[in-house]
Amino acid sequence: MGQAYLKNTPVREALNAYLPVFGTHPATTAEQVPVTRAAGRITAEAIYARQNVPHYLACAMDGIALRAADTFGASDLEPAILSTSQFTVVDTGDPLPDGCDAVVMVEEIIRRGDLTLLMVPATPWQHIRQIGEDFSAGDMLLPSYSPLTPGALGTLVAGGVLTVPVLRRPTVTLIPTGDEIVAPDSDLRPGQIAEFNSTLFGSLLQSWGAVVETTAIIPDQLDALLQAVQSAASCSDLVLVLAGSSAGRDDYTTQVISTLGDVFCHGLAIRPGKPAILGRIGSVPVIGLPGYPVSGLVVLEEIVAPLLRQLYKLDIPFRPAVTAQLSRRLISSLKYQEYIRVRLSLVNSRYAAIPLERGAGLVSSFLKADGWLVVPQDCEGHEAGDMVEIQLLRPLGAIARTLSVIGSHDPLLDECMDLLAREPDSTVELRSSHAGSFGGLLALRRGEAHLAGIHLLDEVSGDYNLAAVAKNFQRGEVVLVEGVYRQQGLMVAAGNPLQLSGLADLARPGIRYVNRQKGAGTRLLFDYQLRQLGLEPNQIAGYTREELTHTAVAAQIKGGSADAGLGILAAARIFSLDFIPVAEERYDFLILASVYETPAVQQFLAILRSSSFRERLERLGGYRIDQIGRVLSHA
Amino acid sequence: MGQAYLKNTPVREALNAYLPVFGTHPATTAEQVPVTRAAGRITAEAIYARQNVPHYLACAMDGIALRAADTFGASDLEPAILSTSQFTVVDTGDPLPDGCDAVVMVEEIIRRGDLTLLMVPATPWQHIRQIGEDFSAGDMLLPSYSPLTPGALGTLVAGGVLTVPVLRRPTVTLIPTGDEIVAPDSDLRPGQIAEFNSTLFGSLLQSWGAVVETTAIIPDQLDALLQAVQSAASCSDLVLVLAGSSAGRDDYTTQVISTLGDVFCHGLAIRPGKPAILGRIGSVPVIGLPGYPVSGLVVLEEIVAPLLRQLYKLDIPFRPAVTAQLSRRLISSLKYQEYIRVRLSLVNSRYAAIPLERGAGLVSSFLKADGWLVVPQDCEGHEAGDMVEIQLLRPLGAIARTLSVIGSHDPLLDECMDLLAREPDSTVELRSSHAGSFGGLLALRRGEAHLAGIHLLDEVSGDYNLAAVAKNFQRGEVVLVEGVYRQQGLMVAAGNPLQLSGLADLARPGIRYVNRQKGAGTRLLFDYQLRQLGLEPNQIAGYTREELTHTAVAAQIKGGSADAGLGILAAARIFSLDFIPVAEERYDFLILASVYETPAVQQFLAILRSSSFRERLERLGGYRIDQIGRVLSHA
Repeated sequence: MGQAYLKNTPVREALNAYLPVFGTHPATTAEQVPVTRAAGRITAEAIYARQNVPHYLACAMDGIALRAADTFGASDLEPAILSTSQFTVVDTGDPLPDGCDAVVMVEEIIRRGDLTLLMVPATPWQHIRQIGEDFSAGDMLLPSYSPLTPGALGTLVAGGVLTVPVLRRPTVTLIPTGDEIVAPDSDLRPGQIAEFNSTLFGSLLQSWGAVVETTAIIPDQLDALLQAVQSAASCSDLVLVLAGSSAGRDDYTTQVISTLGDVFCHGLAIRPGKPAILGRIGSVPVIGLPGYPVSGLVVLEEIVAPLLRQLYKLDIPFRPAVTAQLSRRLISSLKYQEYIRVRLSLVNSRYAAIPLERGAGLVSSFLKADGWLVVPQDCEGHEAGDMVEIQLLRPLGAIARTLSVIGSHDPLLDECMDLLAREPDSTVELRSSHAGSFGGLLALRRGEAHLAGIHLLDEVSGDYNLAAVAKNFQRGEVVLVEGVYRQQGLMVAAGNPLQLSGLADLARPGIRYVNRQKGAGTRLLFDYQLRQLGLEPNQIAGYTREELTHTAVAAQIKGGSADAGLGILAAARIFSLDFIPVAEERYDFLILASVYETPAVQQFLAILRSSSFRERLERLGGYRIDQIGRVLSHA
Repeated sequence: MGQAYLKNTPVREALNAYLPVFGTHPATTAEQVPVTRAAGRITAEAIYARQNVPHYLACAMDGIALRAADTFGASDLEPAILSTSQFTVVDTGDPLPDGCDAVVMVEEIIRRGDLTLLMVPATPWQHIRQIGEDFSAGDMLLPSYSPLTPGALGTLVAGGVLTVPVLRRPTVTLIPTGDEIVAPDSDLRPGQIAEFNSTLFGSLLQSWGAVVETTAIIPDQLDALLQAVQSAASCSDLVLVLAGSSAGRDDYTTQVISTLGDVFCHGLAIRPGKPAILGRIGSVPVIGLPGYPVSGLVVLEEIVAPLLRQLYKLDIPFRPAVTAQLSRRLISSLKYQEYIRVRLSLVNSRYAAIPLERGAGLVSSFLKADGWLVVPQDCEGHEAGDMVEIQLLRPLGAIARTLSVIGSHDPLLDECMDLLAREPDSTVELRSSHAGSFGGLLALRRGEAHLAGIHLLDEVSGDYNLAAVAKNFQRGEVVLVEGVYRQQGLMVAAGNPLQLSGLADLARPGIRYVNRQKGAGTRLLFDYQLRQLGLEPNQIAGYTREELTHTAVAAQIKGGSADAGLGILAAARIFSLDFIPVAEERYDFLILASVYETPAVQQFLAILRSSSFRERLERLGGYRIDQIGRVLSHA
């Protein structure tokens, strides 16, 4: 328990101490590879052309080759008249015939019977590709440490270079460790975690050009780890120990590295990524990566990438960046350089950066994040509205064509995302994040999303969404489009063992409820229903326990840590839960008027109205469609 | 001869006619692949999580787990006092013990002998990772047609998805054709061309995710081509016929495709790339690619990439773009959409775009070009100084750290490029292009380069460069740095068969000279020497025949198409030519004052002064170093 002995070394300082330990790549590790198998490899030395390109005087046009002197003085009035012995018919690429020093294009030749006439004199060397016009033998084609792109490979072959000295690829051994870590194909017991970090980190390292080996999972035993690290260090160029998350694990790794070699740094001033260990055994760098996937990734990018660039000249791309406007205030610690994942929305030509949850364990954030906001250690954070630099985790082109949906959660949004992806002519990708119906209204107001899914009950009229929209937007700002009717109900364990019949039963002693977050339409519905029943929140055990999505609520009930939660039928079905209907509500789409006519929004609306979408809803269950896609209000 | 029957179909129009022929990718071609071997593949359908992550209630802190109710009312004055049976010591990641509903951090626990005290009550569910906090079983992790990035792969494993349905990779067969095309390992005779297009195009297609097969080279015989195309179409998803450059070749390909299937388009309104042929045999697209490498690449990017994106959803990146200022006027044809290769220089925060030669046959342009300027068909071109969009062929980060050298050609610049690449702490890449000494002065004046290599003789003083700099720049605009002294001389065939002893002999009848381009320092030197000898240019046969570099001049002499040319010893050595010294000259470096203090320029100057550079010069031969790196004038 406790890792108070960890130091906070700034990344720059750690690299300055660590990188020089290994020097540069030893030139002896080059290998000769045929050009046809060298794609993506790195040249070990400068490569010079072996032959001229072209290697002969070549005709550059279809026409005739001749001696320019035979045409001197030619004009409209006195054309040069050539006999057949004075020229040769040539095609582009043909070698220049002996004795010729010019080519005349076929279009400039006039034929009169057997005679060939030219009205214009030829200039010596016209329309001839000189030897070495492209490049000459001896010209340097590529300097040392150049990545072998397709263009480079083609040029090498043209230049007569058929095998090329390239740097050896580094071998990286990943050692997953931890008593709680099990193979991904195991049946997971509580407390066990599937070993996915080697897949994540390994495929990233492979994409950087490394050869990756992963050992068996090593339990938390000093001897076992000692043996695994020693064996890996004896046959790899880099060893990465993937630590678990439980306390004391780091101690083993530092102890093992210091026993076999040296530890240079334990603890970086970054968040996530702090528990990294930088060491070496002999001449082999050995690095302890934190167990949380996001932490590990930060250390890979900040420490391992520079190391591999230095030692093996790997062509690891630097992330491009974009300037975006921060959607809300961000407070950052002065103790750490922080890496904050953000989603980016391009709304009306402005990129908005929306910070995501910071949890270092959220592996799904790799699918949700569009970029990193790096807040330096000496910065306390940023205010809402600040322009910030975002390092991209997803291509900017893909972000720019993304329809950004923020609001209430419904699995139908994921089905829309898939249908849009499958649409042959689709030019749009959909990304949704869950912030509740009110969160969606706010996101639209701040220009952080194009559209929001909302289901906000107006207790006065009994209708949905219209009142909330009128209250929150100016006329002409948004368009409300009818969505679907869906069943909300109580999700309970299969077979309904506690014999719940409705919301009133939630006040029974011992019944554990699990709620949705504030601002969620489902929570508003729950509060409304409680009031109708004359119940107070404090009569409901678990009222303060909050989940962000219908499926997360269902998962708690399935897992047995709660007995009931309000949600939609689709979520109950996924987890084979029983479902006690409570109310039907309307889930609509609120769209920024300024983007309503864009192809992206129109493609989305076309999906909503399609029969494939109807089929998906039927499969999910609990939905009813009336006039989907109809404009309800142009508020 | 003549391809007047070729149509000029705009790319958009051609795609609109051609793409719909093939529909979308048939869903039957998915295959199941283990996640560990799925990197870079494309999902065939939406992928849903199979398990909750976390899949159990997990402690999110090191500390103790307890029932929150046991701590209600705790305060500084009346701490909650817990007996050992009321809590369990837990580590982060441990499953929440039965009966507990909260975790208290180790830092908040006070121990008094056997008793455990809490000053603050615990909130139910505090410091507990809920089941499905990351994502829940049933949540859609990836929509159809998603590229499997490292982050996606890690998430799939975490979500219990160990095999994944992916789209089959398309098989592309390349058929190189042409009587003049020979295997790259052949001894080339005049008129023969090494087959390098399959390496260039094949490695590009592989990087896009295709499986590439290349057939033997097919001669220009209708039957042979017919058989090769038919056989390829029967076992590939896409057939590319790589045409040679000689006339009539296209006829064979169109004839073969129309015999076996249909031709939809022959001739695109693009330059280069015009002679493309779009056809199909059965359901297989068959495309004739022009033989010139640059033309072929344009057709690959404009036609083949959209086709593969549509049919196989390949994640072919779109080229990012940057805005740059055009360095000189560009006239473009209204008949074609033109693709003009440019170099980009970042000088004083402004990107300058310098158009390169347009020759479609220049394979080395893939090494020289930083981007494409695409001039639409309806645009007549651009004026010098216009801001234009450049599609990048090289990462912007690499361009931004490039030291841009334009001016007189000397192989020592390539050696500098290599030494800078090999320097462990180097942050700079050097790129040089050859425009002659005067071209270098102009490039500096226009802010298109950081530095220029120049050797400009002042006929009055007999000194080099100082006068030209004083005449062309204001005080403080540039810094002139001493470079090297080098031998200029007559390069002649080995053994000097014509017994030339100096420039005076060039006026002998039958002696064929090859000159350098106007603005080249070597040409100025030649003119000066001729005047000293009382010779006129028209007394020198070949005076108007121009080459751009020393090595290109040497290549002509080696090839036998010229007898003599003025150049440096290094070039003569590369081609084993004899060398008759004419003069020693000083080759200096002229640097923009505004960038003189930048790390890039200072790293370059450090290389100049290094012993490794001296060794390289000795190897090249013909150089003498005096006070290299000394500032000659701060003009």
